[in-house]
Amino acid sequence: MSNCKHLQSVLHNEIPITRAMEISVAHCDALKIELNAPLAPNINHKCTAFGGSLYSIAVLCGWSFVYHQMKLNNLSGHIVIQHSEVNYRHPVDGTINAVCEMIDEKTLSRFIKTYQRKERARIKLQVKILFAGEKALDFYGHYVVHK
Amino acid sequence: MSNCKHLQSVLHNEIPITRAMEISVAHCDALKIELNAPLAPNINHKCTAFGGSLYSIAVLCGWSFVYHQMKLNNLSGHIVIQHSEVNYRHPVDGTINAVCEMIDEKTLSRFIKTYQRKERARIKLQVKILFAGEKALDFYGHYVVHK
Repeated sequence: MSNCKHLQSVLHNEIPITRAMEISVAHCDALKIELNAPLAPNINHKCTAFGGSLYSIAVLCGWSFVYHQMKLNNLSGHIVIQHSEVNYRHPVDGTINAVCEMIDEKTLSRFIKTYQRKERARIKLQVKILFAGEKALDFYGHYVVHK
Repeated sequence: MSNCKHLQSVLHNEIPITRAMEISVAHCDALKIELNAPLAPNINHKCTAFGGSLYSIAVLCGWSFVYHQMKLNNLSGHIVIQHSEVNYRHPVDGTINAVCEMIDEKTLSRFIKTYQRKERARIKLQVKILFAGEKALDFYGHYVVHK
């Protein structure tokens, strides 16, 4: 099974509301996770994406980034969101597209090493939702991983 | 129609994903908005509430507070979330219960007066999700209302 298909089945099986939101995995490798969702199931009364759906897709994009990095390092653990900040910059009135990209290698390798040593580590990630070439949403999430 | 029933139909009609999440309005008056949702449709793989669902319910609780205050003052406008911060303190493994309570009268009346004068105003609200007597989630949302 491809990385994308595997991650999508993890999301759909473990968090059933992602099925109602029709979230799909568009890209999944060590450098980037990209999640998409159509507007229709996530729409609000202004015919743009509901802020709660944008947030859910962003938080899952960061979660998926951590999940995939753990998998690449043959590690397992509980990945939990602890704190987040969100800026809504522009409305999204089409397909929702969230991207979490590789932070610097040093931060990532420190995170993996800390987890291997202490069975607990935290990492701060940025997720962007882009629409029509503009940043629609900025998400910063602090994730904690523990055994 | 009661305040609760009216607000619930607004949420269910205008933001369809709230139906999949089974969000209901437990309390709606000038002093307090309380939204509930069962765990099952909002569950994650650890059998606790998905962080994205907790956020969605919190952001809607604040939105509903502004909506109801506008209605009490015979005002209408677009209510938009602009910025938010969330702290996840404890997992929720039962019914999700979000509460947004009256901020001080002065702040609220300034918000209403600003909107009446400028057709644009902003307000910062706190929403709490409580579970088993403890604060499970702290949400701070900056909402903007415009014509």
